[in-house]
Amino acid sequence: MNIENIKSLSSEEMKKLSETVRERIISAVSKNGGHLASSLGAVDLTIALLRVFNPPQDKIVWDVGHQAYAWKMLTDGRWESFDTIRRYNGMSPFVNPLESKYDSFVAGHAGVALAAAEGIAAARDKRGTAEHVVAVIGDASLTNGGNLEALNNCSSLTKKLILVVNDNRMSISQNVGAFARFLGRLLSGVRYNKIKAKVENAGHKMRLTFLRGAYHKIEQSIKSLFLGNTFFESFGMRYVGPVDGHDINALESAFEVARNDKRSVVIHVVTQKGKGFKPAEAKPSVWHGVGPFDKNDPKEPLEKVSWSSIFGAACIKAAKEDERVCALTAAMQDGTGLGAFAKEFPDRFFDVGICEGHLLSFAAGLASNGMKPIVAVYSTFLQRAVDQVMHDICIAKLPVVIGIDRAGVVGQDGKTHNGVFDIPMLRAIPNLSICQARSLEEFNAMFQMALDRNAPVAIRYPRGCPSDDVRNGGEVSKIEWGKAEVLESGDAPIQIWTLGDYVPKAYDIMHILKKEGLDAGIVNARFVKPLDVELLKAQARRGVKFVTIENGVVAAGFGSAVREALSSTTQEVLSFGWADDFIPHGSIEELEAQFKMTSGDIAEKVLEKFKKES
Amino acid sequence: MNIENIKSLSSEEMKKLSETVRERIISAVSKNGGHLASSLGAVDLTIALLRVFNPPQDKIVWDVGHQAYAWKMLTDGRWESFDTIRRYNGMSPFVNPLESKYDSFVAGHAGVALAAAEGIAAARDKRGTAEHVVAVIGDASLTNGGNLEALNNCSSLTKKLILVVNDNRMSISQNVGAFARFLGRLLSGVRYNKIKAKVENAGHKMRLTFLRGAYHKIEQSIKSLFLGNTFFESFGMRYVGPVDGHDINALESAFEVARNDKRSVVIHVVTQKGKGFKPAEAKPSVWHGVGPFDKNDPKEPLEKVSWSSIFGAACIKAAKEDERVCALTAAMQDGTGLGAFAKEFPDRFFDVGICEGHLLSFAAGLASNGMKPIVAVYSTFLQRAVDQVMHDICIAKLPVVIGIDRAGVVGQDGKTHNGVFDIPMLRAIPNLSICQARSLEEFNAMFQMALDRNAPVAIRYPRGCPSDDVRNGGEVSKIEWGKAEVLESGDAPIQIWTLGDYVPKAYDIMHILKKEGLDAGIVNARFVKPLDVELLKAQARRGVKFVTIENGVVAAGFGSAVREALSSTTQEVLSFGWADDFIPHGSIEELEAQFKMTSGDIAEKVLEKFKKES
Repeated sequence: MNIENIKSLSSEEMKKLSETVRERIISAVSKNGGHLASSLGAVDLTIALLRVFNPPQDKIVWDVGHQAYAWKMLTDGRWESFDTIRRYNGMSPFVNPLESKYDSFVAGHAGVALAAAEGIAAARDKRGTAEHVVAVIGDASLTNGGNLEALNNCSSLTKKLILVVNDNRMSISQNVGAFARFLGRLLSGVRYNKIKAKVENAGHKMRLTFLRGAYHKIEQSIKSLFLGNTFFESFGMRYVGPVDGHDINALESAFEVARNDKRSVVIHVVTQKGKGFKPAEAKPSVWHGVGPFDKNDPKEPLEKVSWSSIFGAACIKAAKEDERVCALTAAMQDGTGLGAFAKEFPDRFFDVGICEGHLLSFAAGLASNGMKPIVAVYSTFLQRAVDQVMHDICIAKLPVVIGIDRAGVVGQDGKTHNGVFDIPMLRAIPNLSICQARSLEEFNAMFQMALDRNAPVAIRYPRGCPSDDVRNGGEVSKIEWGKAEVLESGDAPIQIWTLGDYVPKAYDIMHILKKEGLDAGIVNARFVKPLDVELLKAQARRGVKFVTIENGVVAAGFGSAVREALSSTTQEVLSFGWADDFIPHGSIEELEAQFKMTSGDIAEKVLEKFKKES
Repeated sequence: MNIENIKSLSSEEMKKLSETVRERIISAVSKNGGHLASSLGAVDLTIALLRVFNPPQDKIVWDVGHQAYAWKMLTDGRWESFDTIRRYNGMSPFVNPLESKYDSFVAGHAGVALAAAEGIAAARDKRGTAEHVVAVIGDASLTNGGNLEALNNCSSLTKKLILVVNDNRMSISQNVGAFARFLGRLLSGVRYNKIKAKVENAGHKMRLTFLRGAYHKIEQSIKSLFLGNTFFESFGMRYVGPVDGHDINALESAFEVARNDKRSVVIHVVTQKGKGFKPAEAKPSVWHGVGPFDKNDPKEPLEKVSWSSIFGAACIKAAKEDERVCALTAAMQDGTGLGAFAKEFPDRFFDVGICEGHLLSFAAGLASNGMKPIVAVYSTFLQRAVDQVMHDICIAKLPVVIGIDRAGVVGQDGKTHNGVFDIPMLRAIPNLSICQARSLEEFNAMFQMALDRNAPVAIRYPRGCPSDDVRNGGEVSKIEWGKAEVLESGDAPIQIWTLGDYVPKAYDIMHILKKEGLDAGIVNARFVKPLDVELLKAQARRGVKFVTIENGVVAAGFGSAVREALSSTTQEVLSFGWADDFIPHGSIEELEAQFKMTSGDIAEKVLEKFKKES
């Protein structure tokens, strides 16, 4: 496959290329897991972009990298290495400027591309250079506040850019907003063509009978109504579309129009998510992001018992018991385990689309008028709404329970998706409690207390499943708000403070230390905030040496809270967590090995420090 | 003034009330400072709301509380106490549910009201109660991503709410987006009425000549074009307006229409900022938020030398030397000291409106295409964009300099505006440097280094002016990135680590300690990140006892970073900063006294701890 000459391919060759690219995507994702449906939908779009534009001089800015597998494969000689996508030391799962100059901007979070493209275009305008700037944005992502703010500012900030709306109709569901319906209106080709004929006819008649001055505006208005372009035209952009996103020739024509226009242009491209892989075409949601599967006998990914599903089940139980309980998500219904809730309580379930700020503000509004909202959001996306947590929720102490999913390092999704910053970003906010459970039983008890508390609470939990060894691990002692649980050897001279999914790690470490003759106990802190200062100080008075371990960055994290609580005492605290770096993609095991976060690594450092002292 | 009977006032009495309210606003702001122009503009709107709706059963949700002085004065018996607004222990400067049940939602940050109103309305819908929900949003604030996200979701999340757009045309400037222009198009009454007549006429003719099935849609489309309602109609809301925002009868009629409609309704109200106070009518920007003034002889507030103006001057100098330098703000041109820059370099100045997320993403785009963007943003508003700092800027290490204005406690603006969380929220982000200068000279040197660094840097500085005693305080020693400056007695057994505006406080504390026989030195840390770990550890090896003081919360802050750096050493660290609470409004002196943050308070605690030990 000679992809260098992509511009000179015949129609037949393009079709062949498109098929081969799809095969490679399916093959790689079946081995490594990944974002399947969106990437399959954007293959033809990508080929057409490469035929019309000249990257890396021209800048193609992708919004959310999981559209961009074809892009990565077809640019910068990444054809062969594509197989390594998402693997440790392999190709990064998202668009990454540190990996290739063709990847013009980081794309892991949604709602960024248009603003970034405007910045890139504004820089070009100042310099007077001639590169084209193209933002490719999914319909769901377009409704994110970042992209809407950018749309509003587009014509004042830049002379020209091209916005490709990759409309795979994923955001069109009963729960998602007006904008999706607006795009949806454009899609029924038959109706559109019929009406278009009528309008042209009407325009002709009007020209004869109507006030001359008003004619032009009215023609424009009529066109707008049926072609649906008022929305973008009101933002100063020319609207072209809808274009069949799997007809490369049609796409090329549209891109040529956009390239040659002096104004900014929106190209509305309609694609099919999962295109070319039958199971994904039929159920794109299910095949959105998946683990490895057998491509010759693809079965729907099984829903496993995970922290997300435990959370979802707890929400259902709470909603049955209290009709004020409702559950909210930002386009992550399945990812956050709320699928069953949405079916059972459709009128108490809200999916606001990829709008994390709106999610938290809306939850605050619900809480301020007597409801008990539970918000489910990935840790990395909650970063989009820390101000809403502080300003909308915590100043007035509103009873919102925030489920922080994917807290901690997430593995193959890499740098843009690790949930390692939530503790630092949240723990300074007054009136907010932050906790994490080590087992199913502890989670359920904690969750119920959070709901009963009538104040803001964040419960974090990691990607994946509770570890077997603590999941049903004996009884969970009674939970008191802000109190820790002494799990092992409360009178030992070394105490390991941890919580949640790192409790098993603490056990491993303790066993290694004991083998080496160092007696250590384990405290399950349960609460990052309020922290059990009383227990900490009581242990400190006994001269205890402390070890903290957490699934998050060390800076400003849980260990840092422990140090603060110990205040001016002279106790020693050794803290372990993830490094001050963006943790890349790979398996948890590979990453723990690289960043010296295995139980063995940690135990070794504890021994090194405390054994010679004891 | 019998404000209880506001519904039964005659037109004459309403006019009188409106005047009296304005007088009280001018009087209170002339004494206490405050947000003058917006509040004067919204007086008649407020009276009309209170005549048509029944709060607190009906919920009025204000976006940004500085429209709401009349509201506070006219509700919940707050007429008399209004004089105390912004004063310590007095009325809070923003809409505050903890102060009054009439204040239905916290309103200090923009972009929140529509989402909150939707939550309030959705809760009502579930319960089946009958209260009305009204969001009042300024035209500038409507372009915030939070409100745009909410607009998109409005019709799917709620059965009905009322959105009042308080259009005082403040956002209409060359730099601000399409949405403002769209509203602006509606305002020329004469043109509007002429066109309306033509359209009605045209509609009539069309009815006779046109295809029957298409007629209704085309009528709607023509109406849309001229009345400008397509935008809101496309979001499923009925558009009413524009309404004269100083004609209480007209406002009432519009609110009645909205109250009785079954659909959600947008009422577009046109107000004059500063209405009733000539200087503010003439220059609403200048009189937006002001300090105390003489109401009988109002002079324009003087532009004093402040940290903001120092920042602005540094930006101008940098732009003169390097044509890649540009400056960006989110509707805070004057507040952030960029007024002169905007005049001198209009083509390198960007005001994106109240869109903090867009601000940082756009800056990242500029940086990724060869520019050197400098962003100016208040600390409290940067909270809206921490994810953009992390994802858009820091993963790819883009050279963006972020000026964090109003870092620390801000005084009279209170809980929603204190800049005390920026260190916790930012310092865990990899690749980001965070620094603060103690003097003009130090700032300028640091700023230049930040620009030359080719990596993300945040420079924080407080509200107000550099303290005299350090502003020209002798020479500033050479700055090395990540290195601290030993200011006093580097060999003393107690070392006070601080930075920026708290250096003078450290001197005060040191003098008190010395008087009491405790020898203490001062280290100007300069960098929160990277922290000077080498110096810290060297001092620790000498057995130094550490004191940290910072203008920010203690939790996860600068002192917390010092503890982390000292790691597992047994050094004592006493940390001082603001409490884990939302610090209310008042003078800095009053707040320092309440929260035990005066130099005397801190010195006393240091003496208590360390004197008996020494």
